[in-house]
Formats: sequence, C-alpha cells, structure tokens
Amino acid sequence: MPPAHPFDFGAIDDDEGDTLHEECGVFGVIGVTDAANFVALGLHALQHRGQEAGGIVTHAPDVGFQSVRRFGYVRDNFTDPETMAMLPGQLGIGHVRYSTAGSKGQTAIRDVQPFFGEFAMGGAAIAHNGNITNANALRRELIERGSIFQSSSDSECIIHLMARSLQKTIPDRMEDALRRVEGAFSIVAMTRTKLIGVRDPLGVRPLVLGRIGDGWALSSETCALDIIGAEFIREIEPGEMIVITDKGIESTYPFRPKRPRFCIFEHVYFSRPDSILGGRSVYETREAIGRELAKEAPVEADLVCPVPDSGTPAAIGFSLESGIPYAMGIIRNQYMGRTFIEPTEQIRNMGVRLKLNVNRALIRGKRVILVDDSVVRGTTSRKIKEMILDAGAREVHFRIASPPTAWPCFYGVDTPQREKLLAATMSEEEMRDHLQVDSLRFISLDGLYRAVGESRGRDASAPQYCDACFSGEYPVEPADMVEQGFRPKTAAE
Amino acid sequence: MPPAHPFDFGAIDDDEGDTLHEECGVFGVIGVTDAANFVALGLHALQHRGQEAGGIVTHAPDVGFQSVRRFGYVRDNFTDPETMAMLPGQLGIGHVRYSTAGSKGQTAIRDVQPFFGEFAMGGAAIAHNGNITNANALRRELIERGSIFQSSSDSECIIHLMARSLQKTIPDRMEDALRRVEGAFSIVAMTRTKLIGVRDPLGVRPLVLGRIGDGWALSSETCALDIIGAEFIREIEPGEMIVITDKGIESTYPFRPKRPRFCIFEHVYFSRPDSILGGRSVYETREAIGRELAKEAPVEADLVCPVPDSGTPAAIGFSLESGIPYAMGIIRNQYMGRTFIEPTEQIRNMGVRLKLNVNRALIRGKRVILVDDSVVRGTTSRKIKEMILDAGAREVHFRIASPPTAWPCFYGVDTPQREKLLAATMSEEEMRDHLQVDSLRFISLDGLYRAVGESRGRDASAPQYCDACFSGEYPVEPADMVEQGFRPKTAAE
Amino acid sequence: MPPAHPFDFGAIDDDEGDTLHEECGVFGVIGVTDAANFVALGLHALQHRGQEAGGIVTHAPDVGFQSVRRFGYVRDNFTDPETMAMLPGQLGIGHVRYSTAGSKGQTAIRDVQPFFGEFAMGGAAIAHNGNITNANALRRELIERGSIFQSSSDSECIIHLMARSLQKTIPDRMEDALRRVEGAFSIVAMTRTKLIGVRDPLGVRPLVLGRIGDGWALSSETCALDIIGAEFIREIEPGEMIVITDKGIESTYPFRPKRPRFCIFEHVYFSRPDSILGGRSVYETREAIGRELAKEAPVEADLVCPVPDSGTPAAIGFSLESGIPYAMGIIRNQYMGRTFIEPTEQIRNMGVRLKLNVNRALIRGKRVILVDDSVVRGTTSRKIKEMILDAGAREVHFRIASPPTAWPCFYGVDTPQREKLLAATMSEEEMRDHLQVDSLRFISLDGLYRAVGESRGRDASAPQYCDACFSGEYPVEPADMVEQGFRPKTAAE
Amino acid sequence: MPPAHPFDFGAIDDDEGDTLHEECGVFGVIGVTDAANFVALGLHALQHRGQEAGGIVTHAPDVGFQSVRRFGYVRDNFTDPETMAMLPGQLGIGHVRYSTAGSKGQTAIRDVQPFFGEFAMGGAAIAHNGNITNANALRRELIERGSIFQSSSDSECIIHLMARSLQKTIPDRMEDALRRVEGAFSIVAMTRTKLIGVRDPLGVRPLVLGRIGDGWALSSETCALDIIGAEFIREIEPGEMIVITDKGIESTYPFRPKRPRFCIFEHVYFSRPDSILGGRSVYETREAIGRELAKEAPVEADLVCPVPDSGTPAAIGFSLESGIPYAMGIIRNQYMGRTFIEPTEQIRNMGVRLKLNVNRALIRGKRVILVDDSVVRGTTSRKIKEMILDAGAREVHFRIASPPTAWPCFYGVDTPQREKLLAATMSEEEMRDHLQVDSLRFISLDGLYRAVGESRGRDASAPQYCDACFSGEYPVEPADMVEQGFRPKTAAE
Repeated sequence: MPPAHPFDFGAIDDDEGDTLHEECGVFGVIGVTDAANFVALGLHALQHRGQEAGGIVTHAPDVGFQSVRRFGYVRDNFTDPETMAMLPGQLGIGHVRYSTAGSKGQTAIRDVQPFFGEFAMGGAAIAHNGNITNANALRRELIERGSIFQSSSDSECIIHLMARSLQKTIPDRMEDALRRVEGAFSIVAMTRTKLIGVRDPLGVRPLVLGRIGDGWALSSETCALDIIGAEFIREIEPGEMIVITDKGIESTYPFRPKRPRFCIFEHVYFSRPDSILGGRSVYETREAIGRELAKEAPVEADLVCPVPDSGTPAAIGFSLESGIPYAMGIIRNQYMGRTFIEPTEQIRNMGVRLKLNVNRALIRGKRVILVDDSVVRGTTSRKIKEMILDAGAREVHFRIASPPTAWPCFYGVDTPQREKLLAATMSEEEMRDHLQVDSLRFISLDGLYRAVGESRGRDASAPQYCDACFSGEYPVEPADMVEQGFRPKTAAE
Repeated sequence: MPPAHPFDFGAIDDDEGDTLHEECGVFGVIGVTDAANFVALGLHALQHRGQEAGGIVTHAPDVGFQSVRRFGYVRDNFTDPETMAMLPGQLGIGHVRYSTAGSKGQTAIRDVQPFFGEFAMGGAAIAHNGNITNANALRRELIERGSIFQSSSDSECIIHLMARSLQKTIPDRMEDALRRVEGAFSIVAMTRTKLIGVRDPLGVRPLVLGRIGDGWALSSETCALDIIGAEFIREIEPGEMIVITDKGIESTYPFRPKRPRFCIFEHVYFSRPDSILGGRSVYETREAIGRELAKEAPVEADLVCPVPDSGTPAAIGFSLESGIPYAMGIIRNQYMGRTFIEPTEQIRNMGVRLKLNVNRALIRGKRVILVDDSVVRGTTSRKIKEMILDAGAREVHFRIASPPTAWPCFYGVDTPQREKLLAATMSEEEMRDHLQVDSLRFISLDGLYRAVGESRGRDASAPQYCDACFSGEYPVEPADMVEQGFRPKTAAE
Repeated sequence: MPPAHPFDFGAIDDDEGDTLHEECGVFGVIGVTDAANFVALGLHALQHRGQEAGGIVTHAPDVGFQSVRRFGYVRDNFTDPETMAMLPGQLGIGHVRYSTAGSKGQTAIRDVQPFFGEFAMGGAAIAHNGNITNANALRRELIERGSIFQSSSDSECIIHLMARSLQKTIPDRMEDALRRVEGAFSIVAMTRTKLIGVRDPLGVRPLVLGRIGDGWALSSETCALDIIGAEFIREIEPGEMIVITDKGIESTYPFRPKRPRFCIFEHVYFSRPDSILGGRSVYETREAIGRELAKEAPVEADLVCPVPDSGTPAAIGFSLESGIPYAMGIIRNQYMGRTFIEPTEQIRNMGVRLKLNVNRALIRGKRVILVDDSVVRGTTSRKIKEMILDAGAREVHFRIASPPTAWPCFYGVDTPQREKLLAATMSEEEMRDHLQVDSLRFISLDGLYRAVGESRGRDASAPQYCDACFSGEYPVEPADMVEQGFRPKTAAE
Repeated sequence: MPPAHPFDFGAIDDDEGDTLHEECGVFGVIGVTDAANFVALGLHALQHRGQEAGGIVTHAPDVGFQSVRRFGYVRDNFTDPETMAMLPGQLGIGHVRYSTAGSKGQTAIRDVQPFFGEFAMGGAAIAHNGNITNANALRRELIERGSIFQSSSDSECIIHLMARSLQKTIPDRMEDALRRVEGAFSIVAMTRTKLIGVRDPLGVRPLVLGRIGDGWALSSETCALDIIGAEFIREIEPGEMIVITDKGIESTYPFRPKRPRFCIFEHVYFSRPDSILGGRSVYETREAIGRELAKEAPVEADLVCPVPDSGTPAAIGFSLESGIPYAMGIIRNQYMGRTFIEPTEQIRNMGVRLKLNVNRALIRGKRVILVDDSVVRGTTSRKIKEMILDAGAREVHFRIASPPTAWPCFYGVDTPQREKLLAATMSEEEMRDHLQVDSLRFISLDGLYRAVGESRGRDASAPQYCDACFSGEYPVEPADMVEQGFRPKTAAE
C-alpha cells in the first residue's frame, strides 16, 4: 500500500491520525473523445480528497463498460498508454478514495470505486462521495433477500437497491435507491449513454458542473475543471439530480426538500485553495478566516508563520490584518518518508522532522505566531511547538483557523473516535496548558461563519452549514453509529 | 526510471529543461550506532540536490564495506529494514545525484555514487559534489596506463588517481589525486576507520561539519544536520581537508591557496531555504533579494505572487518592501504527473497545468507581480503568463530574483547549452517582448551581491563569488568543454 | 500475465492452442493447524490443472474469512510468510484455474476463485471444477431478479442461487442451487465450520477424499494428497455430497441418480501420471494405452520416441509391447520462452525449438516411431515431424494415444472451436497426408476403453465414460452453446 | 534472487547443495542481423549451465558497445522488445552464470558477465567459462599496481591483465593476459569488429563453432547451435584461439601445448543430452554408461526407474542391457517451490516432495532399481529411498552412473568442500549402510572411460580426461585453494 502523500495544502502528520481526511473525490465527463484521459486529469486534481486508491469506468459501444481500479496515485495508475487504451469511449466516471479509520490497511481492491452493476436494462457505474448513515441496516436487509455484497463499502448498498428496484430506467432506479438512503451523498454515475449527478437534500458534499467543448463534466471541485480547461457553469443544487445525454441536461429534484447544510469544513481545510465555493476562491475565504482570527485574538509578536501547507492562507490573512510580518518559519520537505528507521540515538520528534524543519536562523530569539487550520489530537501541534522552542524562539502563540473540533464527522470524513479529539476532553485553557504554549486561540464559530460570508454569523436556530464537528449538532441522525454505541450530544452539553 | 519529484522550493517544469539542477548532495557520519540510518535521513534532507539516484556505503569490522546504490528516492530505497540491515556499522557515507544533461536517461547504476576502490592498504569509498573540468584528459591518460573505467562519471578519475598514487595512506593518496584534478569538488569519503571531507580551494560547492552525540557528520547543507538532530559546528573551509577518526579531527590545507569563490546561485536557488549559509538562513537571503528587487524595480500593482515554490521567499521580501499585498495567485499540485496522456481536445499549457493552477477567482481583474527565481529557457515563464492572463489578470509584471542567466555552469550544475539560454541571445527588453508581459526586470548583479551581504556590491576586479552563469567569468578554465568547442566569453563581450 | 509453464507431462505448444487444457483444480482441508499451508501445497501439486491464477480462502474464529486470489503460480503467490499469515485457521479451500479460450487474456482478478458470499446465516466460499452448461440462462434470470454479478465466471451462478435459496443451512442452500445447475461440477466449499465436497451425478470431473492426522482433505487428484502426506481414502461418488465437520463426515446423495460418465480424457492426458484413478496409477493406464496401440497399429522401426512429456508413458508401453527400443529422440527445454524475438534470419519452427530439440546424433538414419497423447490442431505434430526429418530420420511414424479429437468439450476443458480441430474436418488418411508422415495411427475408441480397464471395450448403448470429444455424444445437452449456434452431432454423423 | 529452476536433465535438490553445478555457459555470434536475438536464444539453450544471472553485450557502429546484465532467466530478461532494442548490432556475446558456493546469495550484479573494458585502442568484452586457479595472486599483484577491481569474480583478472599489456591489438593483449592465467578457460570475447574464441591448453571446458548463414557462432554446447538453426562445424581445439571477422577465421595456438584433459563429468551430467561431444550425442554416451553399469553391477529386480531427470538416459541403458522393464517410478513436478512454508504437522521429506512424487500404485510390492547420475552429499538419495519404501517397494537398489565423487572441482564447477562429499569419508560399503538400501553400486572409473569411448579404459599414466573429482589427480595445481588450506591427494591415498 503506498504511503499517503499529503497535498500541498494537506496534512503533515497523518500517520498518527492527527488530521481529518476527506474520504472521496468524484469526477465524470461525457461527450469528449477519450473520456478516460479527462477523468484521469480530473482525478489528479482531486487527489487531495483521497490518496489511497482510485478507479475509472468508461463505456464505448463496441467494448461495453471497462473498469480499472487500483491502489495508489492517479499519476502512477492512469498515465501509461496501455492502461488508458483499456478505457475507450466518450463517457467515463472516476473516483479517488481515502480509507476510513475503521478499515485502514484492510481495504481490498474490491472496496475501490466506481462500483458497477449489470441490470436487466443494462449496466451502470456509480462513484459516491459522502457516507450513508443507515448502511448497516440496509445491508442486513439486502443480504436477507439474497444480495451478495462484494465490498465492505457502504456505497455498495446503492447498487443493490438499484438492482431490486422495479423501475424501468436506471435514473429512476437510482432515485428509488437514494430515497432509501440516509446521510450525505454527492454521486456521479453513468449508464451506456448518460452521465448522472446527484446531491443529497442537505448538500453536505460539493458537486459542480462544467462545460468542455460540446461535452460536460461533473466534479467534486472546480479545480478539476480548470485542469481540463473546462468552464465552471454552476454547482449542482442540494437535492438535485441531473441526467446528461447527447441531447442535453435534464434536472429534477426527486427528494423531499430540506434546508441546505453544506459542510463548513470544506472551506476550512478539505477543498483546494484554488477551488471556488460560493462564488469565492477557497483561498480568499481562508485568508478572511485569518483576518477574522487576527481581530478576535490579537497578540504582539515578531513573525506570523503558517504550519505548512494548510495554515498558509490563514497566516497570510492574519499578517495582513495585524501588520505583523509573514515569514516561512517552518519549511516542508516534500519528499516525505514516514517509514525511515529511527536511529538508535534519540532523535526528538523524528516523525515530524521528516516532513518539517524549523528555519532556525530565522526563528531564533523571535516571538512567533503559528497559524494552523485545526487541532485534532494535538500531537503534531505539540511537536511543532517543541521544534520551534528548540530553535530558540522566545514566545510561541498558536492561532487556529477553526473552532475546537470536538465531535466526529459521519458524513464522509475520516475522524478519530470522539475520545481521541483533544477538544472533546479539554477546554481551550486546558489545551493551552497541555500544549505548553504562551497562548492558544481558536476562531469562534460565529467568526468562522462571518469569514465564510455570513455577515451576521451563525443562525443558532437554523444553522446555515453543517458544523457538527464543532457544535455536535448532527443534521442527519447517525443511525449506524448510534447502534454501535455512539452517544450524541445531550441537551445539557 | 522514476519521474523527478521537484522539491518544495524546486523546479516546476524540469521535464523541458527549463530549470537549473544541482547535480549532487553528499553526507557522511562517523561514531554513531547504525550509521546508515543517519545517512539515509541526511540524504533525504538533501534530496532536492539530486533526485535521480542515491547510494550509501558503510563499513563494519566483521562484514567489511557494504554498498547499496539505487535509482529513485531515498525514502523509497533506504527505508525498509532488510536493506538497512545490509548496511551495518558506525561509519557511512552517501550520495544523491541528478544526471547531467548529456547522459540523461542513459545513466547506468554503475554511474551512481559513492564509488568504491580496493587499494593495497584497504578500501575507500568517495562521494563527490561538483564537476572535474579536466576529466576527459585525465581519463585518456589513465586508460593509456591500464586503468579500466566502469562508469561514465568524471568522479571515477579520482579513484583511479588514488589507485596509482605512491603514497602510503588513503588520505595521502586522496591529496595526490585531488592535486591532479581541476574544477569544483566537495567530497565526503571514508576508509575502514576514517571519515574524510575535502573542499576545492575555491570552495565552489558547500560542505559543513556537525556534531551528533560523540560522533561527527559532514553534509552539503545544514538542513541535513537538523533532521538527525546534529549541531552545526562550522563550514569546511575552501581548500581544507579534514580527517575524522575516533581520536578526533585533523585539519590540513593541502592545495595551493586561492581566493574563495562560493557559488552565488546556491543562495538564489539550489540550497534549501532552511539551510544556513554564511551565518544566515538561505530564506532570509532570498527575502533580502526580494526586497532589493523591489527597490531596484518597483511597479504599481495589486498583488505580489510567487511562482511556487522557488519564488516564494523573494516574493515575500518584495511584498514587505513594497507594501503590496502578498498572495498565492498560483497553486501548486504536489501530486505531479508529467506523463498524463494529453486528451485529443486542445488543452493549452497542459504540462504546466499538471503542476500549477491559477487561483482564478483571486486573480481576475488584478495587476499582478510574479516573482520567480530565474529565467532559463523562458518556456515556463511564458506559459505561466498565459495562464494568468486567461484567468483575467489586468497586468502581468515579472520580477526575477537573479540576473539574466547567460552562461552555462561547468562546476556541478546541469545547465542547457549556451544557445538554449534565453538571456544568451536576448536583451532584457527583447525578453520582455518575447514573453509578452507588461514588464520584466531582473535583479542587478550588484544588487544580488548586496542582498547576499556584500554591502558594496560586486568587486569587479576580484569577485567574491563564482557568478560565471551571469557574468561569463569562469574562475577555473573549463578545459574539457573548450576542447569540445565551447567558446568562452571574449574581452569584447 | 505469467507465461504458462506446462507440467512435465503437460503441453508443448499451448501458445498456439494446440493442446487441450483442464480448466481447474480444487483442494480443501479441515482440522489441521495452519490449513492455508496445506492448501498451498495441494494446489502446487494440482498446478497442471490450471496455471493462470489461484486463490485460497480460510476461516479462523477471530478474523473470520480471509481470501487471497492472484494471477500466477502457487509457488510464487502462496509461499511468503506475510501472505500466509493473512490466511489463518484450521479450515481452508483453494482453486487453480486456466482461462477458457473465450476470455483468454481478459480474465480479471474477480474471475479468480474461490468465490465468497455472505448469507444471512453466515459466509461461504466455493471452488468449482467443471462447467455449467446452462449458465447463461441462469445468469439472465438472476439479474432479472436483482442479483449483481461480479465476474464473468459461470461458477458465480451457484453463489447467487444459494443467496436466494429459502433453506436454512448452507449445505441445504448448496443442494438447492446445484439442482438448478446443469453440466459438470466437482466442488469444494466451506463455511465457518464445514468443509463440503460435491460431485455432479455423472461424476465427469474427479474428486477424492484423504485423511491427514485428525483432519480431512478433498482434492481433484491423489497426487495432492501425497504432497501433504495425507492418506488416500476414496473417491467422492458421482452425485454424492459430503459435509465434514469436527464431528465427522456426513454423506448424502441429493441429486437424481444417473449412470456415471467419468471423463476418459483424464486418463489420457489431464491427470498427473502419479495420481490414482480407478485403483490404478494413471501412469500404468497410459502405459497400457501404449501397449494397446502397439497391438492395434504395429510398424517396423528402430526407435520408439515420446513427444515429451505427455507422450512418455504411452511410448514406454509401446516399446515394451513391440520390443523396439525406447529412446529420448526429442529433448525438452524446461526453461520455456515463447516470447523470444524471432531473429530476422529465417529460423524454421522457431516456436517449437524453444521447447524441444531433436537429439540429432541419435536420430540420424533411423526409422522413428513418435508417440503423442493426442492431435488437436495438428500444428505441433507437423513441426515436430519436420524437425525429425531435418535431423536425418529415415522414416517417421506417428502413433497417437487417443482417438481423433473431433468434438469440443463443454464440461470444463478448454478446446478450440470445432472447425479448428483437425479431426473434425479430415479422415485419418487425410491427416496422414496433411502431416506428411510415413504412417499415422490413432488408438481405437474400443482400444482406449480396453486400456482403461473395460475389457469388453465401449458399450455403445450406454458408454461407461464421457467420450464426447471423440464420439460427439454429449451426456448433458450443452444448452448455452447450442443457443450460441453450436451444432451437435446429427444421427447421420 | 530467483529460485533456480533445474533443467529437465538437471538437479533435483540443489537448495541443499546436493548437486554439482556447472558454473557458466558462453555464446557469441557475428555477421547476423540483430545479433542479440541470436545470443538470447543461444543462452536460453545453455540455461542449464548457469541459472542465476545472464548478460549480453553487443556492438553497433553508431551506438558503440551496449550491455545488459541481469539476475534471473534468459527467458525473463532478454525477450521484451524494449530490452532487445537496447542491444543493436551484428556482433554480440553472452554469458549465463551460476554463483559459486562461496559467494552464493552475495553475488552483486557487478559479478555478472560479460565483463567490459575500455582500452586505448578500443573496447572489448569477454565471457568466461571455467575457473582461474591463480586468481588470488594475480588480483593482489594487479591491485598493488593500481588496478581497481569492480567484482569478486576471478574472470575480471583477465580484463585488467589485458589493460596493462603492451601489445597493440586486443587479440594480442588477450594472449598476453591468458599466458599469465592458470586453470580452465573457454572464452568468448568481442571487440568492435571481431568475435574471439579461446580454449585453455587442456581443453577442460567445451567450446564449439557453428555456421549461421554468412555468420558464425561460438557456443559452449551444440544444443545452442540447434536452437538458432546453425550448423555445427567443429570443436575449438584445446589451446586454440580463433579470431572471426567479416574477412573470415584465423586460428592460432598461442599457448605451450599440453595433452588435452576434457572434463569427463560433462559427459555424465553437465552437458545437455542433445548436445554432441566427441562425435556422439551425450544421450547415447549416458545410455552406454547405463549399459556398462548393468554389466558391472547386475541385480535381479522388477523395475528400473530413473531419478528424474538426470538419471533417465542411464536408466534406459540399464533397462536395455538388463532386460528389466523401464518405468517412471518417480514423477517430477516441474513447478518447483522450495520455499513453501512447512505445515506444523510433520511432513517427512518436505523438500523433496515439492519436486518429486513416487508413483505409489506402480511401486507397491516391487523390487526397484534406482539409477542416478551421481552421489554428492547423499542427502537426496536418502530421502528418495525413504519415499520409495514408504510407497511399499520391496527392495531398493541404487545404481550410480559415475564413480564416487570424492574430490572437489576447481575448474569451473560448484562443488561442496571436500569433507561434505559423502565419498570423501566413506567406502562404497559404508555409503550403502548410510543410505540403508539393499544395494548400492557405482560405475568403475574404467567402466566410465569405456562408456565414453575409451575401449581400453583409463590410461593411469596419462589419463585421457580430467577426472579429478573422482581420482583426486588435478591436472593443474589449484594454487589459490592450496594457499587457503586445501590438502591435495598424497601419494598414499
């Protein structure tokens, strides 16, 4: 299994589970010659959403559906001419995935999407970003009726529900299936002639539409439209299903409408800074978060340094707002190497050193503000602080571009169990003591809402975003997890 | 052959030869348990100096010398316990290399260092950073006398000269050999009991000494001392040879003294920003270059954006000096992918898109200053300019953190032939027209000298650095190249 | 895809489809520590029955079912400790397969058995040797009802039929499923606690029972019992199902009884010569075929030479009966190499030369009898004849240890389409002319029956064996093939 | 390192060192288009002489010398078009090697031949079969003078001696070099325009000349001429050097003449049975050995069985002479698999079982004569005997087709140290008791000489062959080994 290579704006210490991971990215295209090449490029641009494995399915009239699914990077698996020649056709979809905490290291290739099913009226392939919160119950019911599951993925339920639907067309069967499903889903699917995109009624995960020549593309993020030179048209709406053929696009809203609750963490961390969300680049939003943070939690210091790379835009914002010079006090080694053998002599913070090095000559004697995107378990923050102090910094002030992460996500993000989250067991004060820094401040939930464009902050009675990881308020009951013993927030908390 | 993965502060488009590459990094350690693990970590930190191949040699009394040399990254080749168990001992050296332009793609594993020779008094291994400018003549002479060359590397001459020396000890033989050699060399070598470091009298390439527990380390850069937790002691002096045993360090100066001419491009580009050169972090020097550039070539604009990642520190300096906000207008995809199959539809600037994406929402309508480290062939600069304009920028101003690169390097850097260098055939004005940008300015040679700490600028009668790539003044006659037809600068130029 | 390495007594020219291939071998064991190691050894001994891919499934209480399925040889895939540690437990089954002509080169790993299904009452894995002749119809029906097929294998039908059965136990569901299935099957299956063996009512494919310590083994052939040191107990009877648990063995006969029709070609070619069939070693049967052939078709000659290796036992028998000395006139190169690049100069019979070489000094001037097991397309026979004549043989007489192969097999053997079979379009006389040999004789069908122990020869009204490949009399209607246009033998033929 | 796949007529248990191994095979060709393809085929036919690694060197005017050297089989390394395209030209040589006992498992790729050296007058490559008995002394002398050795191979001395020769042409330098060398050598070498073959004055190892179209081939054995369709012309004479160019062949005899002493074991075991030695096929010689053995050591029995595959021709001869029926009582599994994990339950003779299985049904109750080529350590013989008895044989009689192997070979064969040879420490009687068989007989040394064609047996005063492994009479003093403590036979022995 290949080591996960974090994206530029990705994680620094994911081997210890100290980062949240988006689980998936989806991409599809129709109406272009050699669709697989476009899908490969799109997935490459979405690699930060899932680094463990990827797959592409295409369809061409003479050879039917073709599928290649592999562990590892898109750049390694979908670039050689031999492989790409196995994926002919003008229509294709793809998926990149990150394994969830539970199955890490056990993922079989059969868990890698897109999934394919042969139905009486023809085949269909689907790629799913999100998480089905009632998958266990659905699976039990389907096995009882004679379905044979091939994977441990919750997404496979959708294919089996479709196989058992009494509808006549694949889009109709997909509607049928998705009405039984609870949770978050942004889906890209295909039949022999159709490219299909669907988003759950809350619209938790992103999905966008682009135009490429006479064809169309669907993607988790706009950055994947850029790489293929497609024009960004619009976001698929929460609860919308669109079916694209060579005749054009049909849009329907098959689900009971709900108030949308887009994942606010996509702004903070998951999406690429060059993607556009809500009409603004994610980079700008993050810079705004940094500015907001500088207003909420100012401190006197000599330098503002990002924890690279994910803290960079917020650190720039903090510097611009505060007037304190921005500097790269921590340098990131892009070559990775988490599995080096630790020399017998004691090397402190070995794991972090492989990826980060403090700019010692720069830091010495300075009061340093470190800006990071979030604190999950706190292990990395602690090591970074030590490295900074070892290098001779006079003061270390942490500023975090998100509120305390106190609750796990059940909608398609890989989070540790609740008791492993630092903020689940400590107050901000206690965390500061635990990390032994001169000060530690998180942006407020209201501040975050303001930075993402809600000028009046969070509407507590009807929050505009899904912020369950901060607030503990889950817009969809996580049924499977409750069955497994998860205790949701009580009124008292 | 693995694709080259540029370092964070490395190249963006090296597949087209539009970047200069340091050819080698060297590292050695003595007096530590499991020396190979330290060497592996050190080479990992030096990977930006050579990404094509790497090797480690160790010595342990019971098994003698052991060697592992492989194509690919240190993190891939020197991390599994099986390989590392093949390299026991408390003494070891290593090398990472980048192939030179001439032999690109033809490098055999036998060209990968360290080289090893068995002499009458025992074995020795050497790792060489630099380039021997009279290697062809030496090779002819040695073959005439019966030496059998195994590699196409100029460094092998040193081993054969040592084999034929009449001296009694290996350090003495090495002195003998190096007195015959012209050009640039920073060497780390080892015998059964000694770790040896040498630097040519001009001191063109860096070499530093560090203390680790009771042992010692030699490294091309200080960043590799940091990763193993070693203390940076001092630079090896130009013309100095040090021999380290368990008894301590002996220092001698075996060569005829010359005025030192350290490579000024190490400051501009080659060295890692967190390394220390001349008592200052390379990052700070680059920031100072950016400030100097802002003074020399100011322009009104809305944003200062680096060409990532190598332009970043100078862009920050430019922003700090000019007061124009710093922003990440170009986002880098760390996952690479130069070999994707180009879709049949026309995608403009496909190669660049795989690595860079413009932050479209941020750039639109703005006057943008792009700061890059250097212009080599100019192909990448042109593509980046187009992407920025496509994204809707109003004006594009290039500011380059080095003077025009008009001459090839023959001292250990991989440069294109002179006629391929944009600045060899065009004036600054012509280059601006060629790139079709609103303005283009390079830092002056004097400005660069000031930024690296020479407050009075360049001493034209006795330049403080090797700046042949800018000035055409070669401190050592490139004999082999002249023999092959290279025409040095004439008095008139 | 790995090259097929024919077994000692296997094929010589399978790249041109001039040999028949058994499609599968199955093996299972219960009640032994580390069952997977035994299964690996058993499959290794059965490798001649399927060289393309293999899989093993085991069950252990703490980890549940585990499965490893791979392309390539057992010796390459199931020998490293890491893989075997993934397959813990005292109960396991395995499968080796050869792809059928149709899907050659397209086999996906998902077509590799054993297949696994999770049912309401727990999981089960099955490994199938044979061929289901109504698989297409079954598959259509199952898809119509909502089953999702994952492979292109006919064997997957069995798992889906089991999933839909209303029975309460897995053996009962398997009975239900197999009653719907037509064709040939010898199956080894397992649940969490049971090892199951079944043979179709005709008993076309072999399946034997062995005792190993306190445990039991099921195997396609007895040679796989020998390798693990198990004692051969008995053959599973046609139509018998046995269920083995730690309580012992239960035997039932769930199908409507039929007169058994064991595959006579297992005696001629498929089974290993050291396996026991019908109480006698296959080697002895083949020697008897050679003796019978010498009686039926004597000829004066100097040497009897086998076409190695499959013709060896019959050639020995021919020599013993005729008194003509046995000699190795053709030597086999075990190192293979079908894909060498043909030199530009003309090399005659290049393909055959890579595997066979004529013992020129021995053959020169001699009258040679060549004994081969069968003639399929005749291409190899022709090349061998030419090599023998090139070496200076005076006469060449072919003697074939089976009757003319004039009909394809639909019961688990990979045969060319009927029109490619030499004997489908030519009489014995015409074949002799086609091959340009001095004489060509096949054993008679009655002679073959006598050699396998039926002293009165073939009972034309109720043949004792399945001999469809010779006689065109198919004991089970090949429904799928007829639907696809296969024309069975008419009364007139 | 790939497992050794014994040739058909090769070893059965080489993992335990219970077989003698030829160390090398050499092949060269000139005057044919795409010479490398011919060399690859030739080496494939010689794979039984060296299975660990192989290399090919070619020369073409435009690209010069090209070399590919790899571990593993010829069929795996020299068949893909990409590799072969790296080896253009009409002139090429190749080598297959087996590592010697000493360096087993430590062989580096740099020990793989052909070796190449660049001399003042141009390059040359050489491939060597044999062993230099004064290599250690030569190596010391050469290092003293400044030569750098790259391998641990004794053959590298030749290249360094050539580099230091004062002669003007490469053939002259090779003569110079070989006059300093003691021991056995059959060499194929090449310059830019010449193919060179040399055999030491004793002619210990074979070397033959063949005609292919307008070109020529040199090979260790004639079987490699057959595979490329070349005509066998003659053996290179002991002490002869031939130089082939496009002008023709020049033959000289540069060494002091000696009475030839060809290796008699080439007849017994090393050479392929279809090769021609001394005008007769090796197969016929081995059959004659079997006949001689039947005369010398008759015994009443029911079956004569070979230990496959190397005992096969002698067993056939024994059967023909004695009239006792020949039968394949032991079946060989060609799929190998020495590294299977031994199941925890006791499996007797696990190692042997992976390769051999007794034909139990055939052997039961019989008196069996087992014919093997030689007894080295005796471990395999003992295991085979046990398997035969387990299967129910009534009596077991071993007949060995060579005299007792009591002395190691120093002329290019990998033998265990003397004390590991069963015959070095036991009489024939003691060996019989040690193996616990009903009888054990070796052919006499005179009988062996008769079988290879010396009708009057061995000439004790001037033996016609090198039989040092049987007689302890070494035709060339093994200087290096004596220096390392080997005690040659004393007059008393």
